[in-house]
Order: sequence, then C-alpha cells, then structure tokens
Amino acid sequence: MYEILRKINSPDDVKKLNNDELEILAAEMREALFNRLTKIGGHFGPNFGMVEATIALHYVFNSPKDKFVFDVSHQSYPHKLLTGRRDGYIDDEKFSEDSGYTNPDESEHDFFNVGHTSTSIALAAGLAKARDLRGDRENVIAIIGDGSLSGGEAMEALNVAGEMTSNFIIIVNDNEMAIAETHGGIYKNLAELRETNGKAGNNLFRAYGLDYIYEENGNDIQSMISLFEKIKDIDHPIVVHIHTQKGKGYALAETNKETWHWTLPFDRESGAPTVSFGDGENYLGLTVDYIMEKAEKDKDFVVITPSMPGAIGLSKENREKLGAQYMDVGIAEEAAVAIASGAAKNGAKPLVFTNMTFIQRAYDQISQDLCINNNPVTMVMNFCNFDGLTDVTHLGIFGLAAFTNIPNLIVLAPTSAEEYLNMLSWSVDQKEHPVMILIPGNQVSHRDADKSFDKIDSYKIEQKGEKVAVIALGDFYQRGEALADSIKSELGFTPTLINPRFASGIDEAVLDELRSNHSLVVTLEDGILSGGFGEKIASYYGPENMRVKNYGLNKEFYDRYDPEDLLKEVGMTTEQILADIRKIVE
Amino acid sequence: MYEILRKINSPDDVKKLNNDELEILAAEMREALFNRLTKIGGHFGPNFGMVEATIALHYVFNSPKDKFVFDVSHQSYPHKLLTGRRDGYIDDEKFSEDSGYTNPDESEHDFFNVGHTSTSIALAAGLAKARDLRGDRENVIAIIGDGSLSGGEAMEALNVAGEMTSNFIIIVNDNEMAIAETHGGIYKNLAELRETNGKAGNNLFRAYGLDYIYEENGNDIQSMISLFEKIKDIDHPIVVHIHTQKGKGYALAETNKETWHWTLPFDRESGAPTVSFGDGENYLGLTVDYIMEKAEKDKDFVVITPSMPGAIGLSKENREKLGAQYMDVGIAEEAAVAIASGAAKNGAKPLVFTNMTFIQRAYDQISQDLCINNNPVTMVMNFCNFDGLTDVTHLGIFGLAAFTNIPNLIVLAPTSAEEYLNMLSWSVDQKEHPVMILIPGNQVSHRDADKSFDKIDSYKIEQKGEKVAVIALGDFYQRGEALADSIKSELGFTPTLINPRFASGIDEAVLDELRSNHSLVVTLEDGILSGGFGEKIASYYGPENMRVKNYGLNKEFYDRYDPEDLLKEVGMTTEQILADIRKIVE
Repeated sequence: MYEILRKINSPDDVKKLNNDELEILAAEMREALFNRLTKIGGHFGPNFGMVEATIALHYVFNSPKDKFVFDVSHQSYPHKLLTGRRDGYIDDEKFSEDSGYTNPDESEHDFFNVGHTSTSIALAAGLAKARDLRGDRENVIAIIGDGSLSGGEAMEALNVAGEMTSNFIIIVNDNEMAIAETHGGIYKNLAELRETNGKAGNNLFRAYGLDYIYEENGNDIQSMISLFEKIKDIDHPIVVHIHTQKGKGYALAETNKETWHWTLPFDRESGAPTVSFGDGENYLGLTVDYIMEKAEKDKDFVVITPSMPGAIGLSKENREKLGAQYMDVGIAEEAAVAIASGAAKNGAKPLVFTNMTFIQRAYDQISQDLCINNNPVTMVMNFCNFDGLTDVTHLGIFGLAAFTNIPNLIVLAPTSAEEYLNMLSWSVDQKEHPVMILIPGNQVSHRDADKSFDKIDSYKIEQKGEKVAVIALGDFYQRGEALADSIKSELGFTPTLINPRFASGIDEAVLDELRSNHSLVVTLEDGILSGGFGEKIASYYGPENMRVKNYGLNKEFYDRYDPEDLLKEVGMTTEQILADIRKIVE
Repeated sequence: MYEILRKINSPDDVKKLNNDELEILAAEMREALFNRLTKIGGHFGPNFGMVEATIALHYVFNSPKDKFVFDVSHQSYPHKLLTGRRDGYIDDEKFSEDSGYTNPDESEHDFFNVGHTSTSIALAAGLAKARDLRGDRENVIAIIGDGSLSGGEAMEALNVAGEMTSNFIIIVNDNEMAIAETHGGIYKNLAELRETNGKAGNNLFRAYGLDYIYEENGNDIQSMISLFEKIKDIDHPIVVHIHTQKGKGYALAETNKETWHWTLPFDRESGAPTVSFGDGENYLGLTVDYIMEKAEKDKDFVVITPSMPGAIGLSKENREKLGAQYMDVGIAEEAAVAIASGAAKNGAKPLVFTNMTFIQRAYDQISQDLCINNNPVTMVMNFCNFDGLTDVTHLGIFGLAAFTNIPNLIVLAPTSAEEYLNMLSWSVDQKEHPVMILIPGNQVSHRDADKSFDKIDSYKIEQKGEKVAVIALGDFYQRGEALADSIKSELGFTPTLINPRFASGIDEAVLDELRSNHSLVVTLEDGILSGGFGEKIASYYGPENMRVKNYGLNKEFYDRYDPEDLLKEVGMTTEQILADIRKIVE
C-alpha cells in the first residue's frame, strides 16, 4: 500500500517518476485521501478532483522556488501529500499534524494560512510584485476554483493582474460547482468556454485584459503536464482554465457534488456518515422551520445567502420551494448585505444567513450600505461560539468585537430556543433597525422569553439577588446560571443574574439599579474581551466604586484548540471565577 | 439667471420642456454647479460630465416610482438640481441644506445615503428584488462611473445581475477616469468598446451574462433621450455604456481631470483655489518626503494605494519617479491589503495608504490575509480624526473600534512629526508585525520621540505626577497636555501624563505602577469609545479600586457637525473634564 507515495518526500521525488508511476501515484493519493477523510472528515470533492493537476504542477514547476497559492485551501490536500505531509493522511496517528488548510508553519511549500475564499489571486499577485522588485524570475501560480471567482476580492485581483506585465499564472480549476451550485452571470460564460473548448468569442478573462488558455482534460496527468510545460516561465499573466471533475474517483461524490464538497467521517461502501450529532433539536433546524413557514405566509420575506445554503440547512428541496424568496448570490458577502439593504428599503423583509467568520467580509457594507441607511435587514450568524469551528481561519470569537461597535446595528444574543425564535420573528417583521442575531452555540434549551424587543438595550433580570451581579451574554447564559448556583451554594448568598439579550448596548437603568446592593458585576461572553461586550460595562462603572470583572477570551488567533482547555487557560471555569469573586468580595 | 432651472421643482417639470429649453436647462445647471462649487467646493468633474445624461434620465423615466441609485454620489448633483434641491446650488444661504451626497432625508428621489464607491449595483439589485417579490414593474437604474467598477462589491453585483431575469438597468458612465487615471485590465476592454462603438467581440459586461448597449454621445441630450427611451421598461438586465466627458463645460477641468475630480472653493477665471491651508508643514507632506527618500535607497520598498494617490499627496510626477515601487490597484481596498501581504511574505516592504473610512472595506483581508499570516505590512491611515471629514459616510472615528481588536495588528498613534516619522521608518523596516499608523489630525507638532517600537505595547510616561493619570492617545495627546496643565493650575497638583503610542494594547507594567499613588485614570481618544482604546483600560482596572473615566465619542453616525460643538456635547472640553475630575477625586 502507498508504495510510490511513501517515496515522495518532496516534489523532487515526483519529477523522478515515469508515466505509469505517476498514474499509480494518483491512485495511491486517492487512497490516502480516503484514509483520512473516511476517518476524520474534511474537504472531499475539490481534493479528489485536483489529484492529477496537482501531480502535474509539482512535476513541471519547482516548488517552493516557484510558488503556489491555493485558494481557500479546499483543494490543497493533494499538494500536501506531495510536499512532505503524506503521513498526515496515511498514518492515522499523525492526522492532527495536518491542519486541513495551507499553512506556512507546516511546510516551506505553503505561503499563507488560508481558509476564506477568493484571496489567492491577490496574495499571489503580491508574491509576484515582490519578485519583480527583487529582479527574480520564478513562476507564481494562483490556483482558484470556479466557485471562488464570484468573490469581490478575486475579481479585484483579476483586474490588477490584467495590468501586470511579468510572469503570473492563474489556474482556474473549473469543476462546475461552488460548494453548492454556482450562481451568477460569469458561470454562463465559463460554460460557454467549456463547450467551445475555450474558443468562445466572449471571454471573461480576456475582458479582464488577460491571456487565456483552456484544457478540457483536467483529470489527465499527461494533458496537464503538457499544458503546464507550455506556460511555465511565461513572461506575462495568463489564465489557465482547466476542467476537472469534482469528487473524481468516488461515484457517490461524482454524482452528489454538493453533499460531498465537505464530509464528516463516513463509511466508504455506503457513503453514510459514521458519526452522528443526534437527532435532537438544533438551532439550524429551528431556523429552517421558521424560514419555510414565514415564506409561505409572507410574500415580502426573502432569504439571501452568500453561497453555502447548506450551512443554514436549506436543502435543495427547500430552496426550490422558496423559489423567488430565496437568493443565493454566490460567494459574495458584500453583495449579499448590500442587496439585502436595497431590498429592505423597497419594502421586502430580507434575512441574510452565513457563518460569523464570513460576514466580516462585508464589514464596510454592514456599516455603510446597511447601518448608515438604517434599513431593516436581519442577519443570522452561525458559529459565533468559541467551541464551534476551531480552525484559526474560521473562528467566530471576533464577532462581538467587530459588530457591536457599529452604530445603529442591534446585535441580539438569545439564550434559548424560545428567545431565538421570538427575536427572529420580531426582527424580520420590525421596520426600524438592522439586526444581527447570534445563533447560540450550545445545546438547544427551553425557557420563557419575551416576544417584543422594541425596547432597545433592555436587559432582563432573571434572578434578583445581592452583592454580585452576573451578566451572562447569549450562549454563555447557562454558564452564568451555573455560576449563580455555585455562588449561592459556596458563598452563601443569592447573586443577581442578568440575561442582557442586547450585545450591542447598555441598559443604564438596570446597571444604575445594581448600585444599591451590589459591589461586583461579573460579565461573561462568548468571544474575545477586547472590543466586546463586557468592556463597555467596565467603562460605564469606571468612575465609581462598583467593581467589574470581565470574562472572555484573549485577543489572539487561537488554532485547533481544545475548547475546555482554553476556558481554563483564560480563567473562565466556574471554579476559577468563584475563586476570583471570593477574593474581590470577601 | 436660472430662468428655466427655477421652474424645475420636480422631474415632472423637466418633461414639459422642449428641446431648446432642455439645452438652456443644461447650461443653467452648469452655472448652478459653478455657483456652489466656486464658493464651497465639492465634486466637480463627474457632475459636469453628467448634466445631459441626468436631464435625459429625468425626462424619460418617472422618478421616484422609477428608482435611480447613483454610485458614491459623485455624479448626483445634477440629479439633485432636478429633484427640488436647486436652492442648495443657486442660493448661497441654502448651501448647507444639501449634503453633497444622495440622501433619503433630503428627497424621496434618493434611496440611500452613499459615499463609498462601488455599491450602486448591489443596492439597486436589492430594490429590484423587492419590486419583483411585490409584483411591481418600475424601472430600477444603477448609475456607476467606470472608476467604481474595479471595486469588488460592484463586480460581485454585476455577477448577480447576470443571473437576474427582470428589469434592471446599469448605466456605466465612462469618463475614462477614476479619481486619477483608472487601473486594471478591464479598462483596456472599456477602451476597446469605446473605440469600436460598443461592437468589440470581447465584452466584459456580456461576459457577466448581461445584455449591453453603447452610446458615444453621452453629453448630447437628444442622444441620451433616444437611448433611454429605447431601454425603458426593458424586461431583463442590461448595461448601458455611455461615454461622457469628465469636467465638460470648464476647459481647465476638461484638461486636468484628476485635479478637478473634487475641488476646493476656486476662482472661476483662473481655477486657483480661493482658500488656503497655509504653506506650513503637514503630515501628508512629511509622508511623501519619507516615501520618495525611502524608495530611492531601498528597492524592496513599495507603496500600494487603492486608487486616490492624490489623497496621500503623491503627484503624478512622484508616481512616475517611483515607477515599479508604486502600485495603484484601482478602487480595490481588499486587493490592496492582500497584495501587500503577499509582497511582504516574499520580502518586499509594502506601505498601504488610504483614508481610514475606506480601509474598513478590507476588514476581512486585514484579519485573514494579513494578520493571521502576520506579515510585515505598514498601513498608513489618513483622516482618522473627528475633525477631519465630517460627512457621515466619511467619518474616521470608527477606526479604533474596528482595528484595535484584531489580533497581531499593531495600531500606532503618533503624537508629533518626529514620532510619526520614527514609527513609519521602524514599521517599514521591521519584519515581525502588520502595523497600522494613524496620521494625527491636528497641526504638526515637534517633540523628541523614540526610534524603536520593538517593545510592543510600551506606553511612554511623559510626566510623572500623582493622584490623576491622563492617558491621551495619538492626536489627542496635546489635549491631554492641556488638561494636565489645567489640573496643575486649577487643582494644585501635578498629574501623570502618558503617551500610550500603542492604541492596540495595554502596558500592564505602567498601569500597575500607577496604583501606588493614583486614584483616577483618565483616557482621551479621538474616536468612538465603544470598542476603542479607553474601555480596555477600564476593564483592566475593573476589579480594583482604581477609578477610570473614558472620554471619547458616542457610538453614533454623526453627520456634518461642528467638531468643537461635538466635543462639548460628549463632555470632552478641558473645563468639563476638569469638573468631572474634581467630583471624582475630591
């Protein structure tokens, strides 16, 4: 097993293989991918499609002197297999050595830690610019999937590339898919180019001022080698458009491309996932139920996603049922928010949905297009929690800092299913404010909740007590409850427990009231402290005698950590907080 | 004077005019523009170029039922003249009634308050989406200049438009310029389209899946009317590419398009500005001197701007001198930051320059492409101050909240020319950190300053005192000095005065030291308090006895305010702060 692959310690070893061996290598690489992905999951379709092209890249070019930048890293596993990281795929005990994304800490063949889309062309253009200033001549190659092309950053960089005058190679890996189907006018042109073997008169890339070449056989090693040999050391920018098959080599993935873009651990025979998150209630399911019901009875309601309908749990069937009330704008967070603002201005009730880590791509659009204009758009954010996605490129812990400081934006942090659904329903129907709702990252819980949130920044006192007030935001509310219980049992008094609900503002009346019989306010939040929720409360009480202790994460790019260890590291376990309180209060 | 224009109270009045009267109206509109712009300045070139097309738009379409969205508002003055806001141009006492940007508070003919580029297509697509859900049929028209097309948000929205199936009109106003010359490959295609009267085989807009029509005579009212009559009520998306002359009707502006994009008040005869900001030193001048000198002696140094080289004071002559060491990526902040990150990774020393309000368009790129990868890029931000640009769309007061909470990013706030230049020089040459430097918004001052900033987050104690410590950030340092002097003279003791220099971190050693003989720490910062600098200090001292009072602006979209009034409103005058201190300390 892995006879050839085991010999590949660097790209130099690829260059020594004959044609037959290259074919065997491809088969072994797929086996290696199966080994890792069946056991721990990861990006499937794009990697299976790029095996042959990646072998050819390393056969023809001289990495790391020649520099590859893989967009969003979804198709970088074959590259990792050929650059000394094979063991992260074939040796089960070494899976954790490989991050699943390109990572300069892992290898000199990687230049950037990348997990957001549409960045490769600009990053590579920077590498090329520095090369030119230095007077060097190496090849710089960006590898980008067709789905990533719809992102503004990619198109800005295509435009810049169209003005460059030195070596620059953009490989467009066209597998006719984003994560789900692609969306947007450019994909009609890509289809035309595929159908005409690259000869269509109208050509997006040429319109950007770029040279262009097409190759249909993206899964044929020899075709790829010939192609790359032709363009190696080219003296100007060129788009190399290759057609590959997403999921190539696994029948289920070739057929159902959307499902197999990324996979949980699975059984190779049946394709069925081998882990289960239980059939219980979850917030995505509740969201989908709300969406389908609301859409049916309110024709002004429209759901907009910047690609990734799957992230919200919207199945193809549901999307079709929503019809015109669903709009996938492609990977294009900026457009998603601006379109939602425009739609709200004209009377629609738009709901934008994506992961917290991605919405920061629309920071300016949220500030300018949306919040200055104060249009009633609801943005529902998933994975805002510290224990959701733990890859450094996908952390949700920066959302409070990013969005609670934008004027006019109401950021809501629900603490139960009832509160979440009431907030959602209130937000979609109100006409006064742009609203962001943070989906709780913990288990679904149930509690009574208010129906209206018209009284902006009104905190809810869930338990009246004395001495210590615990203000526990969003999905840290349950931790606040546990803390309050411990205070009672350990310290012998009943503390006040507050569910602030509004992450973006301060309830001065509630805070003022605490003065009479409290000496310490403790805040808990699910995110970095810096710029977040608790600091605002510390600042409010700053000039007075009230003590305030904020709990949250450090301002740091954590990567692939154990969530509970991290809480301990920042002193946030119930025991640690209790010890702090003891010191301050007693 | 203004015989026809005075009769135009709404677009309906335009429709009643005959051809001769329309021509007179155009001439009168230019006179009105001259009246306002010679006296108070504003956007010149794009407005003078759009007079005829705007008359035709209002002649043919039925605003506000039909909806216009003007990109970045730079070309919206003629529209304002025809929609009841004439007096803001011809009656000097009413200038202030018109904001200079489209603004729904001013008129039902405006739908968005817009001042950042490249947003019109997405905003208009949202209007169209809501119209379709409602089952209405009005025309929705985005008007965008060629320069704005290079922004990612515009291209994302073009891609979305390419998939729409109902009425949607995108007017591309091609005046062959951004603010300075345009940059990027798409402009070669636009030139080709102009040269072939729209018939070039390769067509950017068709590649986006859009229908397309070209009209060369963008400054001819009748041509424009025929064109718009042809496409009115069209049942699918179309790009209407019109060729206009920037600055049309003023010889100086027709010749020197870059200078006349925006103008100070000026003498119509000579074109010379009638106001002067003095010939004294300013931070832009110091920056340009540094750039030119550094570039000459360090070939790895490269300046990257997302358009607007003028904003940094880089003249055409200087740009030419810099040659390959200057890169204007077009209006494309995301690409600018990512390219800089790539260039730094490959050994270059990139300096990115723009206004604070625009860099937030690259929030995700700063976080992901740059800071996760920790590449040594220097970003120099202009207009970070509350008393610089006071239009709501151009405020610099949100920068501290946006950028001091991103891990790895060092945000430096210099307090004098020496400190600024030393920080700049240190930042460009160091290899450890991404750095953002905030250009002071106050007058250039001179003081000794450290040369190295290797000790990250080290505050500088400028005056050792007792009882009260004043921590005054960046260009509010001089206000801190004044406050310290007042404390001494009014309250009779010498306070400690600290220049923190690092806006993005806390010097725990310095803060810990203050405990021994201070009971109050006062922070001053030039921006909103929420998420900014002072709150971090309040949080640090939260659990202890030290009082902290943070001074800064409210989290609010202020618009066209008097800066000194605003300071008073938020209680930040020296007298107000002194009164607060008296209450807390005594």
